[in-house]
Amino acid sequence: MSASSPKTALTPATHTTPPARFSHGVRKGNILQVAGQVGFGPAAEGEAPRPVGPGLREQTLQTFANVEAVLQEGGASWEDVMMVRVYLTDTGHFAEFNRIYDEYFADLKEAPPARTTVYVGLPAGLLVEADALAVLG
Amino acid sequence: MSASSPKTALTPATHTTPPARFSHGVRKGNILQVAGQVGFGPAAEGEAPRPVGPGLREQTLQTFANVEAVLQEGGASWEDVMMVRVYLTDTGHFAEFNRIYDEYFADLKEAPPARTTVYVGLPAGLLVEADALAVLG
Amino acid sequence: MSASSPKTALTPATHTTPPARFSHGVRKGNILQVAGQVGFGPAAEGEAPRPVGPGLREQTLQTFANVEAVLQEGGASWEDVMMVRVYLTDTGHFAEFNRIYDEYFADLKEAPPARTTVYVGLPAGLLVEADALAVLG
Repeated sequence: MSASSPKTALTPATHTTPPARFSHGVRKGNILQVAGQVGFGPAAEGEAPRPVGPGLREQTLQTFANVEAVLQEGGASWEDVMMVRVYLTDTGHFAEFNRIYDEYFADLKEAPPARTTVYVGLPAGLLVEADALAVLG
Repeated sequence: MSASSPKTALTPATHTTPPARFSHGVRKGNILQVAGQVGFGPAAEGEAPRPVGPGLREQTLQTFANVEAVLQEGGASWEDVMMVRVYLTDTGHFAEFNRIYDEYFADLKEAPPARTTVYVGLPAGLLVEADALAVLG
Repeated sequence: MSASSPKTALTPATHTTPPARFSHGVRKGNILQVAGQVGFGPAAEGEAPRPVGPGLREQTLQTFANVEAVLQEGGASWEDVMMVRVYLTDTGHFAEFNRIYDEYFADLKEAPPARTTVYVGLPAGLLVEADALAVLG
């Protein structure tokens, strides 16, 4: 990385505005960090962000779509991702989550990212959150 | 990064000693990682570390000051931070935390860092913990 | 890092197969990310992964051995690690965990990694999980 790489905010047009002064993603040189994404559907003017469905499948797929949109905004793809951090709320969701995960990532060509999955509290209505670290090039 | 960059421990003079064999921060080449910081006030000889106040505001501001001290020890600032990981203990704190966050980061000139916020358990008395990944240059 | 560094999956021979399409670790250029490791003993054909013991000490030492195996698979060691993320399930384990940690890392020559420790839910029977970010060279 050059000593003067700028840090660029990554803000997909369809994303809802973050609830505080943070970026949905940033890229500097060949490092790209995606902020924690949840299953919010595309931003709708005048409406509060809300998850796409009550179920784990819908929320997971939307969460990954949101991560991917940030990656793409930064010129990257899932193929560049080194690490996915997954936050679930219920250990009972692990098996179903893994099935969805495997379907979603079935077509990866590169080595799949590493992953850590833990069970935490999330705001009401959210079942899954995920962030990602990518190294490009 | 050169192939021979040393890894340097970052230990601000005012920080309390870590409770185990880890560093408050490390820098290697242009990568700087800050360990999880909490709202402990400056180290006082002969006294156990303790949070600066019972409230979220005091603890959050002290936590961020502690992160910043580690960044500065490594020749960095918040402007270099790519990712802030925030650990809260109560989803009811989210709105107030975001207000404090926005005030604290109001003067950032670069793209704000990405952020993930989840709700976990922390040792008794602690309401917030945060760590940070910075890329310099 | 060169613009054409490949991303390599790190799969120690003794590791159990991940429960989904992720890698135990990946390396790209000088960045190595280890996935969340737990206290599973070496893979045994036809048997489901299980933690090595009911106790924190056994699980912690196995977890760290599993992290180290991934590091070594990628040509790295604990000396290259910048950050260790530790997930415990009980704040009452903190003091004992730190004693085990200090013993395990007593012989580190380089600056110890930074660390964040939080308390989360893990699948039944697991008391500790850890992942690591290393920067080589």
